[in-house]
Amino acid sequence: MASGDVKAQKPCDFGKFQFKRILNDNPQSKISFVEGKFEGNEDAAVVILEKTPFSEEMCTKILKTQEGPEKDAIPEEIFRNDIYSGYLLRPERSLNEIKVTVIYPATEKHIEKYSRQELLLVTETAQLYKERVEPYLKDNCFSVQWVYNILEHKAEQESVLYEDFSEQVGFMLIRDMKWDMKQNEDLHCLIMVHDRKLRSLRDLRARHLPMLRNIRSKVFIYTKEKFDMGEDKLMLYFHYQPSYYHMHIHVVAITVENPPGGGCHRGHLLDVVISNLEICDNYYERATLCYTLKKNSPLAKIIFKQPEGDIDNKKEINDANTL
Amino acid sequence: MASGDVKAQKPCDFGKFQFKRILNDNPQSKISFVEGKFEGNEDAAVVILEKTPFSEEMCTKILKTQEGPEKDAIPEEIFRNDIYSGYLLRPERSLNEIKVTVIYPATEKHIEKYSRQELLLVTETAQLYKERVEPYLKDNCFSVQWVYNILEHKAEQESVLYEDFSEQVGFMLIRDMKWDMKQNEDLHCLIMVHDRKLRSLRDLRARHLPMLRNIRSKVFIYTKEKFDMGEDKLMLYFHYQPSYYHMHIHVVAITVENPPGGGCHRGHLLDVVISNLEICDNYYERATLCYTLKKNSPLAKIIFKQPEGDIDNKKEINDANTL
Repeated sequence: MASGDVKAQKPCDFGKFQFKRILNDNPQSKISFVEGKFEGNEDAAVVILEKTPFSEEMCTKILKTQEGPEKDAIPEEIFRNDIYSGYLLRPERSLNEIKVTVIYPATEKHIEKYSRQELLLVTETAQLYKERVEPYLKDNCFSVQWVYNILEHKAEQESVLYEDFSEQVGFMLIRDMKWDMKQNEDLHCLIMVHDRKLRSLRDLRARHLPMLRNIRSKVFIYTKEKFDMGEDKLMLYFHYQPSYYHMHIHVVAITVENPPGGGCHRGHLLDVVISNLEICDNYYERATLCYTLKKNSPLAKIIFKQPEGDIDNKKEINDANTL
Repeated sequence: MASGDVKAQKPCDFGKFQFKRILNDNPQSKISFVEGKFEGNEDAAVVILEKTPFSEEMCTKILKTQEGPEKDAIPEEIFRNDIYSGYLLRPERSLNEIKVTVIYPATEKHIEKYSRQELLLVTETAQLYKERVEPYLKDNCFSVQWVYNILEHKAEQESVLYEDFSEQVGFMLIRDMKWDMKQNEDLHCLIMVHDRKLRSLRDLRARHLPMLRNIRSKVFIYTKEKFDMGEDKLMLYFHYQPSYYHMHIHVVAITVENPPGGGCHRGHLLDVVISNLEICDNYYERATLCYTLKKNSPLAKIIFKQPEGDIDNKKEINDANTL
């Protein structure tokens, strides 16, 4: 179905929504991903339900307006113990909204994108990297032309905050799309290095220390001056595996809770990376690095693949991981 | 006010709640921490509001029952673009509850505990550890008697899942209170080592590799057999700084999103720790380790303190951090 179709132009009639299944659910952030249909039509719809955050105004009203004609309006006590007690509140509809995003008609790709996928933790030893991961990356060189367009001043120049033009130790500091620059608490920028030979952490050696120290010092001078955010307020970290293979560093305010890829199984702080290269020139050639992959991702298939004629390969990988 | 007071024994009357201020707010997890009073009484109350997660049943009903006598019941369109559209829904009160926890009467300590506190990122070099952090820990040896009680079979033995009794390489695997053992997706355990000389990561040397490898292999044998959760399904990680100084390791299912202290500024994966000690015997004596501290915490005061007669000390610490 063409996306310009008239159906896409009409507001959704939720009265006609037919629930099929939960694709995924996040109880921590109170988000649910639902697949369904609208009555009288075969096209699939993906519906994303998300509870809205509290505002000060809403907190005040929710805690005051507990009187109403409806029985539902009475708070239900769940527990009471000493100075602690718990309740379920059912505020007026207008005080407790749910944000809904609809993708309709949705394709199989949309449904896959929003479905829960099994994750696997990979323990990538130096050997596993050399034998499987690096060859895979060489054969599957995803284009980073879009990065070069930025570095060559051909695209997204409105997002460039600062540039050091040196080919060896230089970089660009770029505002991430996630950040609207309205408040420092959400600060999110990206550092892209000019050196095009660097793909990921694995390529770093002690000879890159001048570049890393140059980035550290110049970025903090800039962010301190422009945003009053110095080294005690910002986390600079690499992802491994990165989502694209041109070396870049995330710059995120420490006030951002659970920043994307900030977990200890993906994030590598710049200061720790510098210290590791000081301790050992080829640290990133030798180190074991862990990360999670979706079970169906191309890289997971390479890492956990069974070579022909070797059905005991899973064990072999495990042995490699525990060397 | 004594906590056994009759007021604490009555359910709260939210109709009489007087809002004072928001202490803290987490828009990601949709939680708000409010300070206030109940009319006619001077005691403070801390009220925690949290939106409840979706259930499959609720998703179905929320998306169906969009008809009602109230004007509020009509979904409000926020945007429409191609196949994507967004709405605000206002479901029936009973379909959209808010969990409320009340602490009343609340002390200053409760209020401080739930207030937003300024965080600082510490870049702890080897030098900073030796000169400030380690002496502080020696002078402030928080009791870990409660840990010894567990290790000596005097307390919490119902939580012990597995034990290796060796004094050198042995450990206890303990169910964490956060996990009710009902589903593997929430698995959360703790490993406590028998070696009482080990306080934190900083104490680990290559001679501890047999212990770390023993833990790794025995824990995975146990979790695979008991819960069908092997090394590709579990993250084993240390905290630095830890919350108490007897060496322990967290065991958390990779399906747990944003596990406590799992960020790259606090979590250190066991496999990476093993690899680091293989690369360098005294890695943890030499490494720079980063972590966040609340600005008012005792350790932050030690790290950022101005020694008498040295007003330029902040600079000195910064220099130490960038060595």
